[in-house]
Amino acid sequence: MDVPEVVVERLPRYLRSLTQLLQGGTEVVNSQQLGELLQVTSAQIRKDLSYFGRFGKQGRGYNIRNLIEQLRHILGLDRTWNVALVGVGRLGRAIISYPGFQPEGFRVVACFDADSSVVGQTVGGLTIQPTSDLAGGLAKEHVQIVIVAVPSAHAQEVIDVLVSAGIKSILNYAPVATQVPPDVRIRNIDPVLAFQSMTYYLTPPDVS
Amino acid sequence: MDVPEVVVERLPRYLRSLTQLLQGGTEVVNSQQLGELLQVTSAQIRKDLSYFGRFGKQGRGYNIRNLIEQLRHILGLDRTWNVALVGVGRLGRAIISYPGFQPEGFRVVACFDADSSVVGQTVGGLTIQPTSDLAGGLAKEHVQIVIVAVPSAHAQEVIDVLVSAGIKSILNYAPVATQVPPDVRIRNIDPVLAFQSMTYYLTPPDVS
Repeated sequence: MDVPEVVVERLPRYLRSLTQLLQGGTEVVNSQQLGELLQVTSAQIRKDLSYFGRFGKQGRGYNIRNLIEQLRHILGLDRTWNVALVGVGRLGRAIISYPGFQPEGFRVVACFDADSSVVGQTVGGLTIQPTSDLAGGLAKEHVQIVIVAVPSAHAQEVIDVLVSAGIKSILNYAPVATQVPPDVRIRNIDPVLAFQSMTYYLTPPDVS
Repeated sequence: MDVPEVVVERLPRYLRSLTQLLQGGTEVVNSQQLGELLQVTSAQIRKDLSYFGRFGKQGRGYNIRNLIEQLRHILGLDRTWNVALVGVGRLGRAIISYPGFQPEGFRVVACFDADSSVVGQTVGGLTIQPTSDLAGGLAKEHVQIVIVAVPSAHAQEVIDVLVSAGIKSILNYAPVATQVPPDVRIRNIDPVLAFQSMTYYLTPPDVS
């Protein structure tokens, strides 16, 4: 059965809340409690999880440790993934020094920049490689996921190279609408889009 | 009629693609073409827009300039918004120097940090204020939106202060599940969650 993409996108949030519960000493949770924590309905949680089988016993709640393990397996998080960064400007440097990737199994193994004056420099223990060698560098390091942090004007051309190189997962920080084939997943990290989806709620409705 | 939040979250993406079309010299677009560009169905675009009235003439497509203006008005983007940043570490500094906010009407007007050794320093033309004065500083600068870029362990306490201070829109960069009351909107910018929702598609399904 095909799982809707919105469900897949919610699972990491479930996983994070479950992990926080476990760290706080909780071992069992029901969908009601989990829903309150995640600020979604318990029905949605039960429905989302039902795509992947049966996790809880009726009226007994979920064993958190077990559910975490299952979700990590479903999401492919019980292994490590090799990540590359394209664009080592100010944002790229903040990304590369982000301490949250490694503990979650995401290893940044290569970085690239088009500016020949920074190529060869070392950032976060990695030597900056030229973007002109992107496809070869990705293959050499067995990269599966690429972070794009280049200026907007260059984002699509970089993404086209990534797609040609067989990359199926892209995290794009450039604030621009980009195109990928249907078998490639792209997620956009964009504070402006996030702002723009909140100002709606700050704006009093027109009187009409 | 209440507009589903997922629809509101999609509108900024429509707006961005329409703006790119207009910049490229296109004046009219139909839902089919817009759907291809956004990689969603034309039916979804028509349905999403129908919440806000009638924008196109049957068979004539949308006048892009007009649709942009209407969407900007609906989303509250035909004005400026005051934004504050809490947490002026490496990530906070990258955020504050991000050139994409000002052109879209988001003015970063204040920044705060809990570390007394950086309070008083100037970043991006702003003097770093102490987080202990957060509520007062937000009121003084008429801040409506706050970016949280503090370590995970401090995110919830900062968010609680923001909520008490009447802030209704929060952009959270801390990789942690946080709680807000129902009338407060929070968006999470989190590369790990984005990665984790893509590895699912990189993982071959179990043979069963």
